[in-house]
Amino acid sequence: MPSIKRLDTRDTGFATELERLLAWESGEEAGVRDAVREILDAVKAEGDAAVLRYTERFDRLERDSVAGLEVPQQRLQAALEAIPAAQREALETAAERIGEYARHQSMQDWQFTDADGTVLGQRVTPLDSVGLYVPGGKAAYPSSVLMNAVPARVAGVGQLIMVVPAPDGELNDLVLAAAAVAGVDRVFTVGGAQAVGALAYGTATIPAVDKIVGPGNIFVAAAKREVFGTVGIDMIAGPSEILVVCDGETDPEWIAADLFSQAEHDEQAQSILVSWDHAFLDRVNEAMDRLLEEMPRADIIRTSLQNRGALIAARDLDDAVAVANRVAPEHLELSLADPQAALDAGLRHAGAVFMGRHTSEALGDYCAGPNHVLPTSRTARFSSPLGVYDFQKRSSIIQCSPEGAARLGRTAAELAHGEGLTAHARSAELRRES
Amino acid sequence: MPSIKRLDTRDTGFATELERLLAWESGEEAGVRDAVREILDAVKAEGDAAVLRYTERFDRLERDSVAGLEVPQQRLQAALEAIPAAQREALETAAERIGEYARHQSMQDWQFTDADGTVLGQRVTPLDSVGLYVPGGKAAYPSSVLMNAVPARVAGVGQLIMVVPAPDGELNDLVLAAAAVAGVDRVFTVGGAQAVGALAYGTATIPAVDKIVGPGNIFVAAAKREVFGTVGIDMIAGPSEILVVCDGETDPEWIAADLFSQAEHDEQAQSILVSWDHAFLDRVNEAMDRLLEEMPRADIIRTSLQNRGALIAARDLDDAVAVANRVAPEHLELSLADPQAALDAGLRHAGAVFMGRHTSEALGDYCAGPNHVLPTSRTARFSSPLGVYDFQKRSSIIQCSPEGAARLGRTAAELAHGEGLTAHARSAELRRES
Repeated sequence: MPSIKRLDTRDTGFATELERLLAWESGEEAGVRDAVREILDAVKAEGDAAVLRYTERFDRLERDSVAGLEVPQQRLQAALEAIPAAQREALETAAERIGEYARHQSMQDWQFTDADGTVLGQRVTPLDSVGLYVPGGKAAYPSSVLMNAVPARVAGVGQLIMVVPAPDGELNDLVLAAAAVAGVDRVFTVGGAQAVGALAYGTATIPAVDKIVGPGNIFVAAAKREVFGTVGIDMIAGPSEILVVCDGETDPEWIAADLFSQAEHDEQAQSILVSWDHAFLDRVNEAMDRLLEEMPRADIIRTSLQNRGALIAARDLDDAVAVANRVAPEHLELSLADPQAALDAGLRHAGAVFMGRHTSEALGDYCAGPNHVLPTSRTARFSSPLGVYDFQKRSSIIQCSPEGAARLGRTAAELAHGEGLTAHARSAELRRES
Repeated sequence: MPSIKRLDTRDTGFATELERLLAWESGEEAGVRDAVREILDAVKAEGDAAVLRYTERFDRLERDSVAGLEVPQQRLQAALEAIPAAQREALETAAERIGEYARHQSMQDWQFTDADGTVLGQRVTPLDSVGLYVPGGKAAYPSSVLMNAVPARVAGVGQLIMVVPAPDGELNDLVLAAAAVAGVDRVFTVGGAQAVGALAYGTATIPAVDKIVGPGNIFVAAAKREVFGTVGIDMIAGPSEILVVCDGETDPEWIAADLFSQAEHDEQAQSILVSWDHAFLDRVNEAMDRLLEEMPRADIIRTSLQNRGALIAARDLDDAVAVANRVAPEHLELSLADPQAALDAGLRHAGAVFMGRHTSEALGDYCAGPNHVLPTSRTARFSSPLGVYDFQKRSSIIQCSPEGAARLGRTAAELAHGEGLTAHARSAELRRES
């Protein structure tokens, strides 16, 4: 029976208790950083040789050359043909829906002309090349391949390179099949910080990319943080989280399963339910007791709920919305008759919002369409889901008419002189004199 | 007379030479990081007391309380009234144009409904609060206040807090006036890593923000890198750069002044000219000789051009475009009869593009409208100018109809079982059974 914390927003210590519940440390302490820095330096200096050495050491995979670590396209196609038809169809359906949603996100060029005839605008171009990190071994997530690769493809990225560790040579067919469905260009069985280094700096065999995306363990996360600047990175994800706001009218078993679906990810995952129907919190607790035994990952669920879960009694909808804004959850389920009313009540921070009783968070993880790569650890206060826009960049466009240049030159020169930058002023003034 | 490197794309060693020219190290080595980590930890643990201690130590500014470091709004208004009318008008004109351009960038909500009646969409909300770092002392840049604050205001950010060091109590009226024009809410005279720490963690007096933007020295840059994740940050900027592509028909003095206007920023700044008119490179070199003596910052310009500048002889437009894509410059000036032809020739990577002979880069620094906070050090390969979108975030919206939930549940459950996540499958399946 999962023992889960009970909180009440009316308690004086509530704010502090909530803060404590949400606190989480990434574990990227100095030891991890130093180890990662050493691997990155070796890959930068030695290229392929370092990649081979670390792959042998960490994944017990011995090859004569990095070319021997590349997975040919035929192998991806073979995996797609080897998996059961129902799985293939599910992958293809999911990819299609992710692509359809992604196409709505694509950024567009725009421009306008001011009164002086100066044209101002924004030009959008895709990234040339992107590296996609996919965790390997036991925890194989084909959905993660789709969620990272499909938006990159929709953006028009030139080359998409996937790296996935294959400990003892073990590779997951579903992951390879997902790479085939998503249209990944090249796959290397390299993992860890050495894979991040190879993608960031390039080696003789593995091309350097412009951005690295995808989840990984703390070594991968620390490596991404280190190479940030040399290449772009997506967010550095913390444990998965869900906050469910419920009016007490949803089947308690549905809510219990939703909380479990986060908790089963790992012991650090966070599942929180907020309701103003305090008896409902008890009913969900009872439902969790009943359902837990059916769960193959019951131990993980139990630990996660015990360490980081909570059932929170709120005063009313506004109070629940205040809690949600404070938590800024990765996944927010509004299991309410009128979920729009919660948004209208000032809900501001969430990675993805699951509206209404039928919209379980699990649909969003796989196939609803929106990305499952979402801001965690309260970063939804300032960041967004992964999307097509993460694989495009903008350039500002400025084209002055002679009149515009003359008029703007006056303002620019005034400010440049104010900053003591004479060459700036001169550069603007020369055009005025023409 | 500035001695500046001459390169030729036809030379066999060109690619290597260019690589060497572009190489730049941020100087954020271990010593800087450790010092910054210590300051951040102290601010996190001790709050105001640490802020006061470091401000006294680094800026020789002694106060009884952090409240004594706050600059009241009346002081901002007084500065605005104290500066010459021409400067005030220039600030107001610049702010208006930056605002007009920024309004074009604002992200919008959207949604669509699929065949099953499932609503999918994206909701855009502004950040609650933003911290703006402004360098202090001699190098005072009011334009930087406008470029960072105006887009935040356009985005609808709730609270905008500026920090600016005041070494020995010295504050720049133009900077304060710019803060008044931009509508900054609160200003504290705190700088360095201690200011970044205060904004990231909050103290009793300085509120915690959700994102920190604005330029600073390597301690500020290292501190922003450290707090990334707790708060959002903008890019970590390297030295300023310009690449000018010219057909040889622009007045050589204009181009010389444009190259100077980057070079005068600091010794690490980079100014590069590419042309297929090789005699033109000589003419620009001569013009630089003539103009240099007029420049108050001649020493900085000379050092910058000598260390990091270059005149590059290219074969033709396509060749010049290839160089530009390789450099991915912060500022790209297309001083050509037909700049659009260069964009159409496959130009992909640049922070801002200045089109045509009359569009000097200096106009973009101050008042053309587009932001002057741009990706440096080749990061234009994967990142974008600062914009309104950096002060907004997106939430995905999913609202399934019962039919949609049933149909999607099948796909989700198939994939969840494939990943061994039974609770995910159960959560999706329960809705199908209803």
